[in-house]
Amino acid sequence: MADEVTTWVNGSQRDHLALADRGLHYGDGVFETMVIHAGKVPLWQRHWRRLLVGCGRLGIVGLDGRRLADEVAASSRGCERGIIKLIVTRGEGGRGYRPPRDSEAGPPTRILLRSLWPTYPDYFWREGITARLCGIRLAANPALAGIKHLNRLEQVMARREWYDPDIAEGLMCDQMGNVVEGTQSNIFVVRAGRLLTPPVEHCGVAGVMRGLILDEATAWGLAAEERLLPLAELARSEEVFVCNAVIGVWPLRRLEQWSFPHGPVTRRVAQATASALLSTDTDQPKASST
Amino acid sequence: MADEVTTWVNGSQRDHLALADRGLHYGDGVFETMVIHAGKVPLWQRHWRRLLVGCGRLGIVGLDGRRLADEVAASSRGCERGIIKLIVTRGEGGRGYRPPRDSEAGPPTRILLRSLWPTYPDYFWREGITARLCGIRLAANPALAGIKHLNRLEQVMARREWYDPDIAEGLMCDQMGNVVEGTQSNIFVVRAGRLLTPPVEHCGVAGVMRGLILDEATAWGLAAEERLLPLAELARSEEVFVCNAVIGVWPLRRLEQWSFPHGPVTRRVAQATASALLSTDTDQPKASST
Repeated sequence: MADEVTTWVNGSQRDHLALADRGLHYGDGVFETMVIHAGKVPLWQRHWRRLLVGCGRLGIVGLDGRRLADEVAASSRGCERGIIKLIVTRGEGGRGYRPPRDSEAGPPTRILLRSLWPTYPDYFWREGITARLCGIRLAANPALAGIKHLNRLEQVMARREWYDPDIAEGLMCDQMGNVVEGTQSNIFVVRAGRLLTPPVEHCGVAGVMRGLILDEATAWGLAAEERLLPLAELARSEEVFVCNAVIGVWPLRRLEQWSFPHGPVTRRVAQATASALLSTDTDQPKASST
Repeated sequence: MADEVTTWVNGSQRDHLALADRGLHYGDGVFETMVIHAGKVPLWQRHWRRLLVGCGRLGIVGLDGRRLADEVAASSRGCERGIIKLIVTRGEGGRGYRPPRDSEAGPPTRILLRSLWPTYPDYFWREGITARLCGIRLAANPALAGIKHLNRLEQVMARREWYDPDIAEGLMCDQMGNVVEGTQSNIFVVRAGRLLTPPVEHCGVAGVMRGLILDEATAWGLAAEERLLPLAELARSEEVFVCNAVIGVWPLRRLEQWSFPHGPVTRRVAQATASALLSTDTDQPKASST
């Protein structure tokens, strides 16, 4: 691991994990990738809530939320700008898929990895990006859709379809050909002035930034809703952007044979989300109910 | 990890893994679970070939096959009866889904875990098992189907649906309701004297024992083929059994409201596969082409 990455396991600075951890064997866990700004984690409460939803869906019990929040706060303190990845696995286990019963479950493993701010070109924000359509499609599984679990081979396979640095993101469709999301982002389109983003009940991740936009659009004077997004609909959109909790918003200007303007709705959302990602007044890691 | 488990990473006895390993972050790897009998690994060549197919599908390059075979042989030597789990991950990586280009890829991580023979009741083989139908279904993704990769949350979720020790296995359907496999086994049914097993092109694992049975059935005086298995067809079967490369064959006697006899075809296959699992004359880990 590069020197600029600092890592912790269960609160201790450590660069390795027990081989018995179910995170390795089965991808049995969830994660969050968060921004550190001025020693704080701007969208912590949203990340924390999604983490809890993921643990609940997988039946991971016994996570010490107070301790985890303290660890996130401690590992962010003194860092002006960076990324913190939080992984929670079901912990160590013996052979076999079956996890212990809740009453016999050991503690989940808490992993933190703090790294430098990624070096994306400025024009990704200022002018927008070129994206491609990935060949690999997302499988539909309502039991696992929406949460940010550690089974990410579809994204790995999609991301290795291209190495051209001028292509910033790849869009992924479901098995029916509806656009769902990017490999590391959610997607919004603008149709008749309204923000639309695909539902994530069958596949895809309910991104923290996606959630913020859906929740706050009205306050920003915009309307937003979830709607299936066939590729042909995407092609007819007035504006398109991708978003996540690290980058905020990148206007999507070119996708295969289509191009889109960097329009006023995208600018409005980008401005608002950039503010949210710089906000350190609220939402700091604190003892949260588990 | 329990004392009776001995573990190696890249040939060194070690009980931990680098936090930067992509096996943890994305489930970016494949595995094999193999029997050790009298210090040997009976079905090594089949496990090895499937491992290579999995690495090929995921684009994991640079696996040192000769070294891996030597390590498997060394860790099995002197063990009368046990299980050896082999995990190969894409190795360590930085932030982000994208793996390095093949020309820049670091070495895959080779992990071995040797454990005691599992304590299943004798009557699972002698009389047969009771199974249940799992509520969670398998997602269809042709890009990942068939290989034994580390994204196993569907199996974890299925396996935590029951804790009754009298239920030995849970059967999993695809999203259309066709039976595909068990959580840790493949399934065969007998119809008109013929062995049928579901295809694994859209979901499911191409099990090593399943492959052996499909390949050898003719030599055993039987006919075997792949065919879609709607639940209603399963219910009308003359015999049913599950299989994998550790247990060999378990007759399936009861599934929800249905029951099946322990019939002659299952007995024939069970006998032949049991022999294969005790065979140490051939197929030993050796320098294989990569």
